[in-house]
This record gives sequence, structure tokens and C-alpha cells, in this order.
Amino acid sequence: MENLEIKLEDLEVGSFIAEQCRVISAEVGDAIAVNALSGGVDSSVVSMLGHRALGDRLKTYFIDNGIMREGEPQYVAAIIEKCGVPVELIDAQDEFYAALKGKTDPEEKRQAITETFYRSVFGRLVRESGARFLLQGTNFTDVEETVAGIKRQHNILAQLGIDTEAAYGYKVIEPIIQLRKPAVRAVGKALGLPEEIFNRPPFPGPALAARVIGETTRERVELVRKATLVVEQELAGTDAFQYLAILHEDRVTGIRDGKRDYGFQIEVRCWESEDAVTGVPTRLPYEILEKLASRITSEVPGVVSVTYNITAKPPSTIEAI
Amino acid sequence: MENLEIKLEDLEVGSFIAEQCRVISAEVGDAIAVNALSGGVDSSVVSMLGHRALGDRLKTYFIDNGIMREGEPQYVAAIIEKCGVPVELIDAQDEFYAALKGKTDPEEKRQAITETFYRSVFGRLVRESGARFLLQGTNFTDVEETVAGIKRQHNILAQLGIDTEAAYGYKVIEPIIQLRKPAVRAVGKALGLPEEIFNRPPFPGPALAARVIGETTRERVELVRKATLVVEQELAGTDAFQYLAILHEDRVTGIRDGKRDYGFQIEVRCWESEDAVTGVPTRLPYEILEKLASRITSEVPGVVSVTYNITAKPPSTIEAI
Repeated sequence: MENLEIKLEDLEVGSFIAEQCRVISAEVGDAIAVNALSGGVDSSVVSMLGHRALGDRLKTYFIDNGIMREGEPQYVAAIIEKCGVPVELIDAQDEFYAALKGKTDPEEKRQAITETFYRSVFGRLVRESGARFLLQGTNFTDVEETVAGIKRQHNILAQLGIDTEAAYGYKVIEPIIQLRKPAVRAVGKALGLPEEIFNRPPFPGPALAARVIGETTRERVELVRKATLVVEQELAGTDAFQYLAILHEDRVTGIRDGKRDYGFQIEVRCWESEDAVTGVPTRLPYEILEKLASRITSEVPGVVSVTYNITAKPPSTIEAI
Repeated sequence: MENLEIKLEDLEVGSFIAEQCRVISAEVGDAIAVNALSGGVDSSVVSMLGHRALGDRLKTYFIDNGIMREGEPQYVAAIIEKCGVPVELIDAQDEFYAALKGKTDPEEKRQAITETFYRSVFGRLVRESGARFLLQGTNFTDVEETVAGIKRQHNILAQLGIDTEAAYGYKVIEPIIQLRKPAVRAVGKALGLPEEIFNRPPFPGPALAARVIGETTRERVELVRKATLVVEQELAGTDAFQYLAILHEDRVTGIRDGKRDYGFQIEVRCWESEDAVTGVPTRLPYEILEKLASRITSEVPGVVSVTYNITAKPPSTIEAI
């Protein structure tokens, strides 16, 4: 029953919130629960629900895995604290980069991030806090895509047959597993989240590691972080569903100061979509495309080429890896 | 003196043609000369000039290196023969693919193609024909870019300090070395070439090998050949300076029949340029971009993603490698 979709038009926001708070309270009882805030609408909604249900017995962590966007950990923690939820920032950069070292296969990268997150970092936080529950923002599309074999979402555990209680020592509660994105946004708005959070464009679980083709090193993440900043600044006004920058592993020829320069390529994607299940590239005006290319090639060291995705999903996916 | 540019506005086509025929006749005397026709305007103009100057003492070869576009050897040979120049088709595919095997570095690929062309294949043709001269379509931009270190054009030998007489047994004559593309086109028109040749969009010396990032195998060339056919069909009406499809080595995620499919990516470039020295991407309508993506992902096996270049030259170059 738990996994039946509640469609946006059938959602009664007030009673959904009350019911989820009741379920969380009943399940957790007097125990302690933890949750990881990423700043996306899903984990933010779960933080708000969990805090409403459990008060101080919810520990909300923001785990800085070193693959976030520019200034993101501080920015997100500040907003959610303003909404009344205390957030503890955990610097786990070294652990994540150690796990990612030498890995170029996308599945292995996802796996390294998932394992580091759930086993190493969360395992430790759970032990230290004495928590027995993890509140998590898995949504209906995550489940559907994992089951369909399109994509292995980082936050799908039960669906993959992982018994978190046996494996990691905590039980997972997923309050928004019946909702797709538009419904999650409606709940977030009703919970009092500011618009910059409840309408925030989605960002993948593996963060900027999903935006680097090939090995995820600090240096390569720094390049795609700079490109992402430009893309988000230039495309914030477009009302698109999602926009992203991808650092390719392929090198291409360019010219710097009149000399041949074998450099990097950044691919920009900008999507029109309701729920990420299907999507088409936004028909961005060429003025914007040209400004993106000009800013990225001048502001991101070594980048000599920028492309724009023109393929729909399917056969493309929203992200490149 | 030979390398001083003759600008389009200073070019007197009739006397230029007469003078170059005179130079070729004087230099070759009673000997035999050969030239390689590629179907570009440069080599076509040289074939016409050489035939006018030498008649039967010019042997024109079309070398099928296996990295040409769909049906190109037959198409080009037929057109030039219609203009009165006999063309001999040479199948050298195996030699080129053997030389390219295992090579991923762009410079090594260029080098392998240059060496196979000038030493193995041309060396043999020259010995067999008894020729002592090679007529070649080097133009002013080729020289300039090679000297500037931007790009090593495949057909630049003297500029790189290669003594062809000592190295390969023949002397090189370059009748259009003082002209840039627009001037070459004017000469081609005056020589009676049909418009499909004298206005033909440029195509790189290393042909489709320059359109494959990574190793140039028959299979990968076949993929980019199919994508090139789509791009040329769809963009022929745009009046752009040049348009091309590039097969990337990076793999990206896609969806086929509802399942995740790690597939290939094709990058499309379409340029507005006068002479290839600088250029900007053509502002193609989105209807065309979307049709390109849709046709390429359905007609080229394994391709799940198509991008469009949005970077100007500089800092990009026209080609990717």
C-alpha cells in the first residue's frame, strides 16, 4: 500500500502532513531519528515533517561530501535553520574523495558515494547519536526509475533488497515515497519552506560527481562547480525544470592566445519536464547560449568548448551519467 | 615571394589561371606529375589546372582511405571526369586502418594518415607511374595555421621542413598556395567546375578520422559516417560555411525500450565563417536541431545523445581534433 502514488490532484496537503507526522511519531516512538538534508525539496520536506513530528529527537545533518555546488552547504543549512530546524554541518570531503579515487565507471562512482554515505558517514553519525531511524526523501519517481532499471537512485535501498537495519544498524522511513515532484513541492510550500527551496530545481544525489564524466577528482569537480555556477546564474530566469553543466572526459582542440590548446569541453543541458520521466531541451535563445559559452570558456580554466544538449528524454536521460 | 597572399579583391582569375598553368608546365617539363583528388574545392582546382597544363601527363588519383563520407569516392570521381579529367580510384582502406589501429592521440592519428598517404600509397603510385612531381592544393590558410602552430594541416610538408624529394622521391608543386578559400572558389568557377564542387563546404584532410575522438576503427567511422550523412542532408539548405558530426569517446546514459542504455554521443557543429580563421556557430532554428537529434538517435546505432556546439572560434576550433 505504502508505495501507491498519490497524484497531485488527489493530494490534500493538510491531511497528508498530519498523517505523515502521525506515522513518523508512531514508528520512532521515544527513539532518536536522523536525516540528511541535501537542500533539495525532497530532503527539505522530510526535515520539516520530521522536526514537526519529533522535535529535538530528530537530528538533521548536512553532509558536505566535497561534491556540492559553490557555497551550497552553508546556504542550505542557513535557510533550513531559519525555518526552525537545527542543522549540523558534517565535513566528510576526504572520505568521499578517498572512496572515489580511481573510479571512472558511473555505477562504481554511484556505489562508492552510496556506500560512503550510508555506511561510513551515516553509520558513524547513527552510532554517535544513538539513532535507530533514518528519515529519507525517496519519492515516487525514484522508486519507479529504479524498478524499471533506468537509473539506480542513490537513495533507493529497500527496492534494491538492502536491509538497512541489518546492514547499517538503522531503519529507513520514507514519508514522501507516494509523491512525485509537483506534489512534494506543494507539501513543501504548505510546511512553510521558502520558494527558493520548494521550487528548487532538482539536483542529483551524487551531486557534482554525476556531472563529471570519468574520474571524480577535487580538481575536476572544481571545474564543473565553476561551470555550474555560471549555468545557474544565467538560466535561473528561464523557469526551466532543470539545468546543468557536465565536464566531459574527451579533450578537444581549441585556440588560446593564437596557439593550439587541447582543452576541456563542458556540455550544458536545460530541460522542460513535469516530473523528469520525459523531457525536452529548452529552446533557449541564442543570446543566452552564446553568453553561456563565452562565460564558461573565460571563467573555467582550460575549457575551450561548450555544447548544448538537443536530445529529448528518451532516448537521452536528464543527467549524462 | 611564392607565399605572399593574393587577396580576393586583387585576384584576376584569368591571368592567375594562365600564370599557374605556365608555372606547372615549366616546372614539370616533359615529366609526369600526379595529384590526389579529394573532392574539396582545393584539390579539384589543382586537378583542373594540372590537366589544363599537362594533359595526359597528369595522373589524377582518388585515394579511398576508408574514412571518406558515404559514397564520396564514386561521387567525386564521376563529377571530375565529367569535367574532362580522367580519375583513377585507388582502394587503400586496409593500409589506412592498419596504420590507425590503436592510435587515440589526434597528432598520432594525423601523422599516421599523412605517412600512409605520402609515403606508402603515394610513394607507390609515384614509383609505378614514374612521376617526379606531386601537384597539391595547399592554400594560404593551411600555411598560416600550421606556421602559427594552431593546427598541423595534413598537406603542409615544406613548411614543416620535410624535403619530399629526399623523403618520398617526388617534388611538390602548390599552385593555389597564395589563395584563401573564397579566391580558390572563384578560380574553380572560372575553370568550369560545377557549383557543387566550387562551393563545396570544406572537409578536413584526415576526413572522418578527424570526426572520431579516440581510436579510428571501421566500426566507429561507420557510425560517424551515418551521422554525417544526416547532418549534411539536414543542413545543406542553411548556406553555412561548414557543418559536421563528431563521434565522442565519452559514453553517456540513455534509455532504450524503457531500459537504461549506456550509449554514444554525437556532437554537431555548424559554422558561419569567411575563411575558417574565425567563426561563430550558426543560429540554427530549434526545429532543425530537434530533427537532427531525432534522426541521429534513431538512424545511428547506439547513439543516445546529440549536442550542438555553441562556442565561437576562438577559443574553439572548427574541428574537434
